[in-house]
Amino acid sequence: MTVRFGLLGAGRIGKVHARAVGSNPQAKLVAVADAFEKAAKELAASYGAEVRSIEAIEKAADIDAVIICTPTDTHADLIERFARAGKAIFCEKPIDLDVKRVEKCLAVVDKTKAALMVGFNRRFDPHFAAVRKAIDDGAVGKVEQVVITSRDPGAPPVDYIKRSGGIFRDMTIHDFDMARFLLGEEPVAVSAHASVLVDKKIGEAGDFDSVSVILETASGKQAVISNSRRATYGYDQRIEVHGSKGMVAAENQRPVSIEVASEKGYVRPPLHDFFMTRYIDAYANEIATFIEATTTGKKASPSGKDGLIALKIADAALKSAKQGKTIRLDK
Amino acid sequence: MTVRFGLLGAGRIGKVHARAVGSNPQAKLVAVADAFEKAAKELAASYGAEVRSIEAIEKAADIDAVIICTPTDTHADLIERFARAGKAIFCEKPIDLDVKRVEKCLAVVDKTKAALMVGFNRRFDPHFAAVRKAIDDGAVGKVEQVVITSRDPGAPPVDYIKRSGGIFRDMTIHDFDMARFLLGEEPVAVSAHASVLVDKKIGEAGDFDSVSVILETASGKQAVISNSRRATYGYDQRIEVHGSKGMVAAENQRPVSIEVASEKGYVRPPLHDFFMTRYIDAYANEIATFIEATTTGKKASPSGKDGLIALKIADAALKSAKQGKTIRLDK
Amino acid sequence: MTVRFGLLGAGRIGKVHARAVGSNPQAKLVAVADAFEKAAKELAASYGAEVRSIEAIEKAADIDAVIICTPTDTHADLIERFARAGKAIFCEKPIDLDVKRVEKCLAVVDKTKAALMVGFNRRFDPHFAAVRKAIDDGAVGKVEQVVITSRDPGAPPVDYIKRSGGIFRDMTIHDFDMARFLLGEEPVAVSAHASVLVDKKIGEAGDFDSVSVILETASGKQAVISNSRRATYGYDQRIEVHGSKGMVAAENQRPVSIEVASEKGYVRPPLHDFFMTRYIDAYANEIATFIEATTTGKKASPSGKDGLIALKIADAALKSAKQGKTIRLDK
Amino acid sequence: MTVRFGLLGAGRIGKVHARAVGSNPQAKLVAVADAFEKAAKELAASYGAEVRSIEAIEKAADIDAVIICTPTDTHADLIERFARAGKAIFCEKPIDLDVKRVEKCLAVVDKTKAALMVGFNRRFDPHFAAVRKAIDDGAVGKVEQVVITSRDPGAPPVDYIKRSGGIFRDMTIHDFDMARFLLGEEPVAVSAHASVLVDKKIGEAGDFDSVSVILETASGKQAVISNSRRATYGYDQRIEVHGSKGMVAAENQRPVSIEVASEKGYVRPPLHDFFMTRYIDAYANEIATFIEATTTGKKASPSGKDGLIALKIADAALKSAKQGKTIRLDK
Repeated sequence: MTVRFGLLGAGRIGKVHARAVGSNPQAKLVAVADAFEKAAKELAASYGAEVRSIEAIEKAADIDAVIICTPTDTHADLIERFARAGKAIFCEKPIDLDVKRVEKCLAVVDKTKAALMVGFNRRFDPHFAAVRKAIDDGAVGKVEQVVITSRDPGAPPVDYIKRSGGIFRDMTIHDFDMARFLLGEEPVAVSAHASVLVDKKIGEAGDFDSVSVILETASGKQAVISNSRRATYGYDQRIEVHGSKGMVAAENQRPVSIEVASEKGYVRPPLHDFFMTRYIDAYANEIATFIEATTTGKKASPSGKDGLIALKIADAALKSAKQGKTIRLDK
Repeated sequence: MTVRFGLLGAGRIGKVHARAVGSNPQAKLVAVADAFEKAAKELAASYGAEVRSIEAIEKAADIDAVIICTPTDTHADLIERFARAGKAIFCEKPIDLDVKRVEKCLAVVDKTKAALMVGFNRRFDPHFAAVRKAIDDGAVGKVEQVVITSRDPGAPPVDYIKRSGGIFRDMTIHDFDMARFLLGEEPVAVSAHASVLVDKKIGEAGDFDSVSVILETASGKQAVISNSRRATYGYDQRIEVHGSKGMVAAENQRPVSIEVASEKGYVRPPLHDFFMTRYIDAYANEIATFIEATTTGKKASPSGKDGLIALKIADAALKSAKQGKTIRLDK
Repeated sequence: MTVRFGLLGAGRIGKVHARAVGSNPQAKLVAVADAFEKAAKELAASYGAEVRSIEAIEKAADIDAVIICTPTDTHADLIERFARAGKAIFCEKPIDLDVKRVEKCLAVVDKTKAALMVGFNRRFDPHFAAVRKAIDDGAVGKVEQVVITSRDPGAPPVDYIKRSGGIFRDMTIHDFDMARFLLGEEPVAVSAHASVLVDKKIGEAGDFDSVSVILETASGKQAVISNSRRATYGYDQRIEVHGSKGMVAAENQRPVSIEVASEKGYVRPPLHDFFMTRYIDAYANEIATFIEATTTGKKASPSGKDGLIALKIADAALKSAKQGKTIRLDK
Repeated sequence: MTVRFGLLGAGRIGKVHARAVGSNPQAKLVAVADAFEKAAKELAASYGAEVRSIEAIEKAADIDAVIICTPTDTHADLIERFARAGKAIFCEKPIDLDVKRVEKCLAVVDKTKAALMVGFNRRFDPHFAAVRKAIDDGAVGKVEQVVITSRDPGAPPVDYIKRSGGIFRDMTIHDFDMARFLLGEEPVAVSAHASVLVDKKIGEAGDFDSVSVILETASGKQAVISNSRRATYGYDQRIEVHGSKGMVAAENQRPVSIEVASEKGYVRPPLHDFFMTRYIDAYANEIATFIEATTTGKKASPSGKDGLIALKIADAALKSAKQGKTIRLDK
């Protein structure tokens, strides 16, 4: 079976997903929709696809699945529409910035029994996936503590930040999902500290740029997350999982792994400077997983519920940071 | 000038300090006191020193300075006695497990104008000291976030744990001091999560074995600490300091740095399995610093006040973990 | 301009090059030829190409360039035919195992002014290319010594070895090319030692499996190469270049960069176990370079002459190892 | 039993050995001799030893063993004198620069049955010793190829070079000994290439500064050595041993193991800049081994014969480099 795709949104992440579809022998890109027609046309042309309206894709008999890469505030509506249209749905995170809206959307998904997968791409990074596999293989025994480092090369434009839902819902949410993925148990309490240390304008926009978070599960497992919107040396993404038998860690990825030694010491080039090059394999594996799930009828993961829980943790973290107190998630 | 030393306590840490004194050309070990006479005799013999009582050392004209390595509950009394006796004092941490007792003790130190240095040895580790120096040299710009990993190879006996004051006052206190050393600004809030994941007996003794802590300063700088009483792969001690211009990190130390590659992969031997071998250089540098301060009359650092502040943070962390809320230190 | 390709040989390396052509926006795979028709059909189908005979490709007006991935003993004949047919030629190494045959072939290439590029893929590995770039940027000053490690995961079948021309012409030849690429000056003397340590059958087939070689240039620069047909831990490919100002090195590449720490120590997974996964980027960059050269009319490098010189060094190394003496290349 | 030492030579290496004796509970430094009396006095004073003449040490009843750290051209004479005097002898390498002189000296040692240990300190480096131990433990199976990198921070003064016997006898000799130590089989052939790339004055003094050497044993095992008199990034000392089951390597040692990341990349400080700090543990272990051998009557290793064989290899390497041919050692 070949999965026939409609792509909603032809921006930079849309292009990444189009390439993943195009290079997968079990998938075909049939149609592209974008409010900006030139972008849609160019992307469609590269893969022998057509430009269609969202409505046309909704009704098309030759489309099995859609990938939603439109602006965040359209995600929930589109999920509902395509769930009702009987299409398999891959939606970029987040479903929505408002928990209530997400819950309403997921109710529609449940009722229509639509297949919905949410784009937490990092689970599909080969190195992070290998960490999860090492845990499953018993390499570290029972998981006890998770340490996640996540630092971006630079802050996005303040305009983006204003409509991003803030650092916890936009950036740390990936780490909340990763913590859940690795802990294997739901967090029940969150303590977060958040500051503006990188750029005052971020603070003026009502957001933070430097945060530290502890999550704790019912059995006492802990995850520690540290985030910054700026890392001069590149995209700093590391995880460590400590358990009863040992530790497993995934180190940073480097575009070029050479080292120059001189009287100044030993110098290695900076890390990747862009999340799309850093996670290029992760995006391809993510879409391959969605295609596989669509083909076999297996439940796609991470699910809408995974998206919802990560958002609830983000909301709690924000409340914790603002009120200066630990927030319980189980109350 | 040669600094003439009396050593109070001939246990394992006493031996480490005796060696540091013995190999320092500006110092001489004159007398050793220990309730267990055989230990005192043996240690004294190795360095051409005498066995004397604490009283005799107190009154001795040929003793300039003392090193206090006796049980914790005698520290404050001994500091007061030797402060009054006009000796320079190096005391192993902690001064006492009770903040009020420490404050009373430091009042005596202040009044007598005694020179008091407290044994936070990690500041003197060549690698951690090089991190501090890199910060001072501007390598990372303005410090923003500190990440400290501190994991012991194995838990001490439960008997020790019962009188240790608990993990925050016994183990994390080193990391609190390190965080202050690196942040360059006092923490004003602490959020701590603590669990019993390693050994139930530790829980039955009223203590925790796995903790995660966030410290925040007035200007919003953050320090994240993660501790466990057990690391199967050895003594795991790492620090990272993130700033406006970059990051500086100190990696783990290994007793043997070889690597074996085979069909199983690349294998490096475990880390040091004992804090005394891990920090052997730190102990020597620490005593050398005390000797230097005693010789020159400069103020020894870390001071009694450093010991007091670290203890207050430990108390706040314990309160935070027990009550499940962020604790303010500035109120 | 789009370069229209004929592919000669649909084996595993043919597939790698087909993919490189297929994913390059400036190229199109038009035809595939292979004595084994099923292989040709399957590969052609994947890229919308036709199956044609070699003769048909030779005469085709819609083919600008060919990639030769047929058995080694056909390379020289095919290069001559397609040189005369006016096609741009990319040929897998080696041109031939016999120096005289190569010289005759290159005379035809010269006469016809055909564009010929030879497949020394390692020059196009991003990490090795970065080493070359670092040298060009002056990072190590004047090059003095090159150290090349090249160990295969396992020996090829003895049948392959028998017709391979031997380890120096089959395996070390890549390192000879790399040494020339990095030294920036031609070797004039070679000392080689060769043994059978891995598998007696290799010795019975008249070949060696473990070799060490020193190359020296006229100005006294040295390159040291060590090879083995077996490395239990994977595909071990490292280079170091030492110069007057310092050193630049490229480390091994790993398919998964995680590390597991336990009481056994720190364990990283083995290296790549196959040259095609190890050098996947190199193959893509190599074909991209050939396409670029074909489009712009620039001279493609490495050239036929590069192939010839590497072969001459291989012959000299074999003679050195067999006769137990240093061989001059400049006499 | 306490071994009572006479030290001949109070220069910088004499000081290193004096410290090793002084800190060993089974040894005592009794006397120091040096033509430069001030040096002898100062060193003797630090360890409670006396200044004596060589003659007095030779006849002393209270001296069990001597450490010879005088200029090279006095070594053989002193070994003979102290062998006849019945003292255990530790002599810095080399015994002499002339093979015949060494053979004559060792004949005296044999006849007098004197205990003689030669100072190839690197065998006692904890990391290199761990490599040897890994081989003994079967970690790499049967040894096949050894790769040794040995680069000095900077060249010694030309005056020293003139009387050093040349790079092979002065510097590479350590690597020849290390190769024998690791191969576990005697080399029978040597191919060496030697150049002057670092400093013309070294060439004018009749020596080389950059050499590459291959050693081969009777069974075909190979060792590859690369040397330079200059490494801008510090004292570069690495070994790799490849065998039938895998590889074991010892990496460089660093005085400070921190890393700074910034927009320039990841920077680690240079390596040790002096062999005495690099090999401080090796020197202490070496003398401890000699003391242990003297106490127990076990044969000390490396022996005089080890010194002789390494010198013969050095002579052959020089001949190989000068004559441009492989030299057999077994003929």
